[in-house]
Amino acid sequence: VYRRNSGHRVFTHADWAVHRKPSRYARHLALIFASRIFRSLIPPITAVTLISTLVGVYETLLKEHRLPAQWPHVTLALGQGFQLTAFALSLLLVFRTNSAYGRWWEARMLWGSLTNRTRDFVRQCLAFFPEDAKRLREAAVLWTIALPYVVKAHLREGNRLESELEGILTRDEVDALTGATHRPCFVLAALSQVVAAAGLDPQLRQRLDTNLTAFEDCIGGCERILRTPIPQSYTRHTSRFLMIWLIMMPFTLWAAYSWVSILLSGLFAYLMLGIDEIGVQIEEPFGVLPLGSFCATIERNLRELHYSNPEARFAALPW
Amino acid sequence: VYRRNSGHRVFTHADWAVHRKPSRYARHLALIFASRIFRSLIPPITAVTLISTLVGVYETLLKEHRLPAQWPHVTLALGQGFQLTAFALSLLLVFRTNSAYGRWWEARMLWGSLTNRTRDFVRQCLAFFPEDAKRLREAAVLWTIALPYVVKAHLREGNRLESELEGILTRDEVDALTGATHRPCFVLAALSQVVAAAGLDPQLRQRLDTNLTAFEDCIGGCERILRTPIPQSYTRHTSRFLMIWLIMMPFTLWAAYSWVSILLSGLFAYLMLGIDEIGVQIEEPFGVLPLGSFCATIERNLRELHYSNPEARFAALPW
Amino acid sequence: VYRRNSGHRVFTHADWAVHRKPSRYARHLALIFASRIFRSLIPPITAVTLISTLVGVYETLLKEHRLPAQWPHVTLALGQGFQLTAFALSLLLVFRTNSAYGRWWEARMLWGSLTNRTRDFVRQCLAFFPEDAKRLREAAVLWTIALPYVVKAHLREGNRLESELEGILTRDEVDALTGATHRPCFVLAALSQVVAAAGLDPQLRQRLDTNLTAFEDCIGGCERILRTPIPQSYTRHTSRFLMIWLIMMPFTLWAAYSWVSILLSGLFAYLMLGIDEIGVQIEEPFGVLPLGSFCATIERNLRELHYSNPEARFAALPW
Amino acid sequence: VYRRNSGHRVFTHADWAVHRKPSRYARHLALIFASRIFRSLIPPITAVTLISTLVGVYETLLKEHRLPAQWPHVTLALGQGFQLTAFALSLLLVFRTNSAYGRWWEARMLWGSLTNRTRDFVRQCLAFFPEDAKRLREAAVLWTIALPYVVKAHLREGNRLESELEGILTRDEVDALTGATHRPCFVLAALSQVVAAAGLDPQLRQRLDTNLTAFEDCIGGCERILRTPIPQSYTRHTSRFLMIWLIMMPFTLWAAYSWVSILLSGLFAYLMLGIDEIGVQIEEPFGVLPLGSFCATIERNLRELHYSNPEARFAALPW
Amino acid sequence: VYRRNSGHRVFTHADWAVHRKPSRYARHLALIFASRIFRSLIPPITAVTLISTLVGVYETLLKEHRLPAQWPHVTLALGQGFQLTAFALSLLLVFRTNSAYGRWWEARMLWGSLTNRTRDFVRQCLAFFPEDAKRLREAAVLWTIALPYVVKAHLREGNRLESELEGILTRDEVDALTGATHRPCFVLAALSQVVAAAGLDPQLRQRLDTNLTAFEDCIGGCERILRTPIPQSYTRHTSRFLMIWLIMMPFTLWAAYSWVSILLSGLFAYLMLGIDEIGVQIEEPFGVLPLGSFCATIERNLRELHYSNPEARFAALPW
Repeated sequence: VYRRNSGHRVFTHADWAVHRKPSRYARHLALIFASRIFRSLIPPITAVTLISTLVGVYETLLKEHRLPAQWPHVTLALGQGFQLTAFALSLLLVFRTNSAYGRWWEARMLWGSLTNRTRDFVRQCLAFFPEDAKRLREAAVLWTIALPYVVKAHLREGNRLESELEGILTRDEVDALTGATHRPCFVLAALSQVVAAAGLDPQLRQRLDTNLTAFEDCIGGCERILRTPIPQSYTRHTSRFLMIWLIMMPFTLWAAYSWVSILLSGLFAYLMLGIDEIGVQIEEPFGVLPLGSFCATIERNLRELHYSNPEARFAALPW
Repeated sequence: VYRRNSGHRVFTHADWAVHRKPSRYARHLALIFASRIFRSLIPPITAVTLISTLVGVYETLLKEHRLPAQWPHVTLALGQGFQLTAFALSLLLVFRTNSAYGRWWEARMLWGSLTNRTRDFVRQCLAFFPEDAKRLREAAVLWTIALPYVVKAHLREGNRLESELEGILTRDEVDALTGATHRPCFVLAALSQVVAAAGLDPQLRQRLDTNLTAFEDCIGGCERILRTPIPQSYTRHTSRFLMIWLIMMPFTLWAAYSWVSILLSGLFAYLMLGIDEIGVQIEEPFGVLPLGSFCATIERNLRELHYSNPEARFAALPW
Repeated sequence: VYRRNSGHRVFTHADWAVHRKPSRYARHLALIFASRIFRSLIPPITAVTLISTLVGVYETLLKEHRLPAQWPHVTLALGQGFQLTAFALSLLLVFRTNSAYGRWWEARMLWGSLTNRTRDFVRQCLAFFPEDAKRLREAAVLWTIALPYVVKAHLREGNRLESELEGILTRDEVDALTGATHRPCFVLAALSQVVAAAGLDPQLRQRLDTNLTAFEDCIGGCERILRTPIPQSYTRHTSRFLMIWLIMMPFTLWAAYSWVSILLSGLFAYLMLGIDEIGVQIEEPFGVLPLGSFCATIERNLRELHYSNPEARFAALPW
Repeated sequence: VYRRNSGHRVFTHADWAVHRKPSRYARHLALIFASRIFRSLIPPITAVTLISTLVGVYETLLKEHRLPAQWPHVTLALGQGFQLTAFALSLLLVFRTNSAYGRWWEARMLWGSLTNRTRDFVRQCLAFFPEDAKRLREAAVLWTIALPYVVKAHLREGNRLESELEGILTRDEVDALTGATHRPCFVLAALSQVVAAAGLDPQLRQRLDTNLTAFEDCIGGCERILRTPIPQSYTRHTSRFLMIWLIMMPFTLWAAYSWVSILLSGLFAYLMLGIDEIGVQIEEPFGVLPLGSFCATIERNLRELHYSNPEARFAALPW
Repeated sequence: VYRRNSGHRVFTHADWAVHRKPSRYARHLALIFASRIFRSLIPPITAVTLISTLVGVYETLLKEHRLPAQWPHVTLALGQGFQLTAFALSLLLVFRTNSAYGRWWEARMLWGSLTNRTRDFVRQCLAFFPEDAKRLREAAVLWTIALPYVVKAHLREGNRLESELEGILTRDEVDALTGATHRPCFVLAALSQVVAAAGLDPQLRQRLDTNLTAFEDCIGGCERILRTPIPQSYTRHTSRFLMIWLIMMPFTLWAAYSWVSILLSGLFAYLMLGIDEIGVQIEEPFGVLPLGSFCATIERNLRELHYSNPEARFAALPW
């Protein structure tokens, strides 16, 4: 299945307890080499470390007179330009990562909204549809259950939509659905038909239609995030800025730290590249959010709302 | 009971007066060792202090020639890499804490919205329901009072929901409720039934339904915050960045401060780790917000709205 | 009366002209010792200045050999830790003050919304209520005028609500109102009764009800801000961070500035503590916003809308 | 007329092309002394330059022994306090300017909303009003055209409202309007009357009323921005912080730059004060936004919608 | 055609995979001289490099006594002023670019909203319009398809609107449309006519009208962004600040780096100017967003919704 980062999962109270433990610092440090961020950054970190080593070897050879004496030193002093740009680089990097975080959180909110509104839509259908319209009620619930699965398949690669919809829609319905190009729109059109068939008071029908509009906004919002990255020029300039900085760094470190500068180069490269990498990882949020769990939760909630239809139970209650 | 941080309570004018007093600085300093933040950070602060002591002992033994002379010095000069990363670290830390603050404030707003809309819903029921529907009015008010308690139990561990609902719902109603998996949805379904039973004009019914949708959004919003932490990769990288920094710091402090650097290491560790810790504490806001007080306030307000039904009192007024 | 900061008042064009004058810099500097911020910070500024003086006296005595020679120097060099934390402290301080500003501006927006919607509600009542319902129209206008006064009394201490409502509500009405625990809710219940009594088309009644819901949201939003400060752990850590910094500063300043460092300590303490103090002052906005002026403006507008009822005047106009 | 900053105008594609040209850097530099910001900052910049000159003269006289030898040097070394506060000052300054930008952009959005909703309101009137209600349609369009002019006169000083409304409202209507204290409210009351007179289906009337509520929100939002500046304590502290910094700066610059420090003082003062000045200029946005152009655009659009009533033209179309 | 930056295109899963590859750092570095940002910055970068060269030549001639000995050195030490302003400059630059990003993202959201709501509008028309109103349904769909093309032509220069509308509207309709000054408003008026002609229940008509209002808001929002740049004083001050800084930089670099400072000057100029340039590029977002693709996607979706009208297909389904 398509799941880039196993760290994004639905949190329980037990997860939060672990999350808050002071021992987290030790755990995080211990697992540093196992972290996805570190592993995906091995190439650029290696490059920076290599440059640092070359600077060290060159300077050592020069000092030991094993290179022509007129060859120049390559170490650089620190100066105003470095200070200014260090500052601008940090700001640029953290702002870019924050924009990516904003996209990730918006995607999460859109799925949250999909969760709330599917529940709301089913609650309304059960309260508004006439009691004898059993078939229509069931159709409304089942197509609403199908919606998040269809949206997930719309946003991610490599889904097995047909097997996921087994037990929700009939074979014929799945065929009609998968025949459409824009499948989420097809589901909404189907739900509009169900609502139209229920013959409701226009006032109540309007309430249901409001939720269908909310679904359109969720779907469109997800598509917007998926189809439009942060402007490439922004991403590229940040990336170039960072690399130029990391490439120049070893030249400024040698004088003060000699061979330790190799270690420090690698370390600083990891710390700074890591900020960029987090941003890039969460910029496309649908690969990292646990959409599968969301769909399953929605299905569970809606099935409970429908099958344990409160009407039956409330019959016992005093009104 | 489950209350992680006693500092989060409902503020009164007297609290604000204390909050603004210039003497707060002295008070905060005096209570530093009693603070929850400090106490939960004792392990990592101790670790940093220990490293600092070891650096001091090693360098002293080396200087007094009680270690082999060829063993290297371990102190580090400051340099460009440190400056750059110091800056990036501060930004990362403060931005992460700010995102956690954003979550905390959103949770507070969702509960505020729950407060407003329960009041609004009861106001509407009392104004819209026919005068003789005493039983339905009461059912509407009582189930609305139950809602925040049920949401609280949904968001927190270790609640005694059944005892809290005593005096609000009947034994039968509580049993039906606790039999459901998603209890807040059950309450909304029950309220939908009450509204359906009132036989209102569809226009007025629509107004009530709008508030039920608002309840769905509050509940779903809270679940979203509870189930989804800030991306773990972000949290972990910040935490690793901070620890690497704090571990390297003692090596750079010894040359300038000798034994005072042990004190300074501990102090700087406390100040920086504290920022991270605040963020982690408020990232899951439902354990720290005074949800119990919120529920009690809502209950008090709704009961007043209902029992001192203005209708009776307004009878005396000239319209 | 309860007015913490006379600087918050309703601005006129003349105020803006003064506000923009280049001479503002001179004026602000001249009034520095008269400023509320400065006066409320005298205790901590004095403390920092005193520490600075003690450092100076101690170091001078030591230098002049009037103290035992083995007593240590207490001045500190600057180093990495200071630089890192200086940066983090500034960020923490300015972000916290910005969050307080966000609360203040939200409170202002809620009162702005109360202003807009009371005008809108009265506009609707005058357009929707039947022409002959003079008494109901008047009741709607007067209770709407009462609303902001009641909300103000709900948010501030030491109001004389009864005298403020004189000339708006009758004695009986004021008694019924002040008998309620949650008075703003009582006013909304009363307005709901007035609307119910008007016998409107449900469609138009719905429009009025939408504004009543908007009132509930304004009231609840204000209560939320009043009852919930920025997390205390955040405020306290910022305050501790700042004080630790200011206490350590004199030790680092003496070497470079000798006796001038006393002046500089006080000055830097004022500048940094001032940022914190502004945040604390506006964190509870209802004591500093000119709520009295807002209420008076709303009353003036609504009375004009009502008494100079356009209907009469438009009679002369060609439609 | 009242137009503080001619730089704020409605942008065309040609303006954008100029705006993006790389030659902008040269143009901006060349026009530095002509810039409004620079000219309004001449007094404080002169003051800082003067202080710098005095420091230079004093130190030179001292060095040349033309002043009593026991007189002290006034130059200051840089140190921790300066570094910390430099950082905090920049943050404070840029955040304050950003808040002012937020206000400016909100004002622009409110006028944008006024533009959209006047168009929407007229579109609805033309589609909803019965075909034979020619007079009412015209009244609706003309009063809607009048609205932005009235709002502009409400927000700015020195408007010639009566001449602006010539050709829109009749003499009688203008008299009735200018007789009101709160004129935008009067226009909305008039529009409410027009809508009430049209005898529409309540459902459609509700749609029109929603736009009237949107107008109330726009008007109230503008008033809020106009009447409430950023808290004065914030503005004043930033201004004092900046001035103290700029006054101390010449004392720290002399040692390194001698007479060049006069030039540098003036330059740095210009750069830093400029940030503050921009914020102050856009904090009250209604003097700088091209409200006149906005009103003219709205009028042009609405007249086109009305006079070239699509109905007539669509008659030719196949439905 | 008018497309300023080919980097902004609709992203696919394959694009995201490339976007996340660690090899992106190497790719970005390799393409640095081909980047649009770099190429448009050649003039100012050249200027800074030239100044740096002149400083080097002058100082070298002076040192080699080929210039009069009394001619002064032009190199500058770093000092407080530089540090302070470096910091403020970075903040100003990054905040301005972030505001531009905010505008770009808002524009993207407005087009996203246009996408969602056109789909929603067509879904509603197909569900609400009577079955036999074939012609009206088609008119609704086709005019809705025309809307984004018309909005695009309204926001960009150099469109061939007439050829784009071929196959969507008839010759007569296109003529009527292009005869209007404000064409998007004309389309909305046409859609209002179609809705009015459908003779719907007012409740359902209201739902459609809500989407027409949403279209008005999208169009007006885009116009607002197009017609109003970030305040020119802000842009110009940032630009001047940056240029003054870059011009002074070579004077401070020579002492430490001698001839290498020419390279460093150019590099730092590129890195800092690049941040400004990104902001300027995305400040007017309609030239860089792939509006053409958006229009094509909307057309495809709406045509599918219409021609593969679910009604027909659902006939086979069991309700």
